[in-house]
Amino acid sequence: MREYTVAILGATGAVGSRLIEQLEQSTIPVKKVKLLASKRSAGKQLNFKGQAITIEEATPEVFESVDLVLASAGGAVSKRLLPEAVKRGAVCVDNTSAFRMEPEVPLVVPEVNEQALFEHRGIVANPNCSTIQMMVALEPIRQKFGLEQIIVSTYQAASGAGQTALDEMLSEAKDYLNGEKMEGKIFPVKGDKKHYPLAFNLLPQIDVFEDDGYSHEEWKMIHETKKIMQGDMNDPKLKVTATCVRVPVVIGHGESVYFKTTDTTLTVEKLKETLQTAPGVVLQDDPAHQEYPQPLTAEGKRETFVGRIRADKENPGSFNMWIVSDNLLKGAAWNTVQIAERLVENDLVHVPTEPYLG
Amino acid sequence: MREYTVAILGATGAVGSRLIEQLEQSTIPVKKVKLLASKRSAGKQLNFKGQAITIEEATPEVFESVDLVLASAGGAVSKRLLPEAVKRGAVCVDNTSAFRMEPEVPLVVPEVNEQALFEHRGIVANPNCSTIQMMVALEPIRQKFGLEQIIVSTYQAASGAGQTALDEMLSEAKDYLNGEKMEGKIFPVKGDKKHYPLAFNLLPQIDVFEDDGYSHEEWKMIHETKKIMQGDMNDPKLKVTATCVRVPVVIGHGESVYFKTTDTTLTVEKLKETLQTAPGVVLQDDPAHQEYPQPLTAEGKRETFVGRIRADKENPGSFNMWIVSDNLLKGAAWNTVQIAERLVENDLVHVPTEPYLG
Repeated sequence: MREYTVAILGATGAVGSRLIEQLEQSTIPVKKVKLLASKRSAGKQLNFKGQAITIEEATPEVFESVDLVLASAGGAVSKRLLPEAVKRGAVCVDNTSAFRMEPEVPLVVPEVNEQALFEHRGIVANPNCSTIQMMVALEPIRQKFGLEQIIVSTYQAASGAGQTALDEMLSEAKDYLNGEKMEGKIFPVKGDKKHYPLAFNLLPQIDVFEDDGYSHEEWKMIHETKKIMQGDMNDPKLKVTATCVRVPVVIGHGESVYFKTTDTTLTVEKLKETLQTAPGVVLQDDPAHQEYPQPLTAEGKRETFVGRIRADKENPGSFNMWIVSDNLLKGAAWNTVQIAERLVENDLVHVPTEPYLG
Repeated sequence: MREYTVAILGATGAVGSRLIEQLEQSTIPVKKVKLLASKRSAGKQLNFKGQAITIEEATPEVFESVDLVLASAGGAVSKRLLPEAVKRGAVCVDNTSAFRMEPEVPLVVPEVNEQALFEHRGIVANPNCSTIQMMVALEPIRQKFGLEQIIVSTYQAASGAGQTALDEMLSEAKDYLNGEKMEGKIFPVKGDKKHYPLAFNLLPQIDVFEDDGYSHEEWKMIHETKKIMQGDMNDPKLKVTATCVRVPVVIGHGESVYFKTTDTTLTVEKLKETLQTAPGVVLQDDPAHQEYPQPLTAEGKRETFVGRIRADKENPGSFNMWIVSDNLLKGAAWNTVQIAERLVENDLVHVPTEPYLG
């Protein structure tokens, strides 16, 4: 049996720590783990399966003899280093937005489009956290009943912006409760011109804005959905629009999704039946017993929780639905490791003769 | 000039304190103020324009010689006492859901359907907080460009459930930050079977559920919108659906609204022009300078803040929009006092010969 040398790029971040944990629990036969980070963290140690591993600085050379790279150190780092890793024979699963829209790079949610992995040319992209959980919930519906339109409003947790951002939100909350003034320095977007407190507030900005008023996060959801479900980020057959809002939650993105199927006779019961057996989905829809998805109960779980399914009685075939998943697991680390597991299972951990080098 | 004796029913609550404050700042010539509450609070004192006023127990007799009642002490209290007040010649503005759906009771947002006040038979209903702000933002659009469909997802602040509920959310947040376990006892709904923490969480339940899976809050938004905009809670011309979610915010409801107009040539620019001069609206839509509505900046203001207007490019005539308003002011106390002001201005503070008595 082949064993793999796996490198985790960005091992010290909020997603990085979960990548380590998810890899520990995965089915991948791991020969060796390399933990990579910036120069600043090099030399420190982190545990993998109880063994202390010294963090190495991420340089092109460090990928020699690596089979698989799990990357989550930001788009700029991926753009610079993943082609170097591919050149050296490593297959990369990238959790940043660096290559998601490249036609040569499969964008994969294993429950939805695992087959796209067979086309990889060295890099596979992990979709955006808010896209992934929506895909897991909607794909079984699309397959059975057809999908014409998706209108989504997100309620995205602070941890989606990273550990420092999350810490800031919690420290703002402390200030507020102590009667002190809150002062945002990171949210809504690190590096943007203005900053606002997130604690006890709502920020309708995730990532920077395009000229048309949509945020990058909103366009990511639109284009990624089209690419994952239809293979083309611009395919107009399935219409998608999104509003992305940051909320003062620690872990777990919520999504209020309105969707129009092509089956005007479709009932809530048939939808529930379908979701009950859908891969990666936990149907949590029992209003009579107040059972519905919540961030606090989804935290730490790999599944996507779906509930509050309701028919739009004035528009047969259209429905409302509420989705929650752990944005650091299915939205990031678990989906990345799950892709790696599928690459291993399908013997796809080989860089092809014509690799994609960015 | 006629002067008015005004009674505030439910003077000690979160909305009650704002009713006092909004009445102090109103144009209504106030002769006398009566502060009414339950037996438990009777005898305590509260200030009105710097003068201490002793709270009286709310009984039928206390409404003798009252001209105007502003009620916010819960639906059961309104059902029991407002007909008694009307019998004694008082015109009532009710901030509870007790009479909203009665055909004999006008449901009024002054910016939208002030003319309905002329039909009152003793009781005028104040709409639900989440409905009001949406009406203020959408009515100018409906008037100019026609409206076919509204799909709304709400982000509702803890204070919408009252002062004790808000206090619980803040105390849960304290527990969480101190590393203690959070335990919900009020949210999502006081008196319902199960309770969950709201701090750092999302609860997709506001009010109890109907058999069809919608919550009362969701049906309120649907029916109230139809009644306010069309005069009939069941009129199918304008299609409305809603998902209502409680979020860990102190004051200020957010709403992500998708709407379909009848004008397929409509542009974001024309919408902005229209909202710029719309009554009660502050257009706050400048993504390039990160200007958009937020609960923290809307708190304490009477206006409804509207921003993030974006065209759904795949559906000409349809748009996304983000709305925030202070749920205790425009969503409750200010809209109530504003209705009272319009009753006074239009000399409508008279109970007609055939009053509505519930």
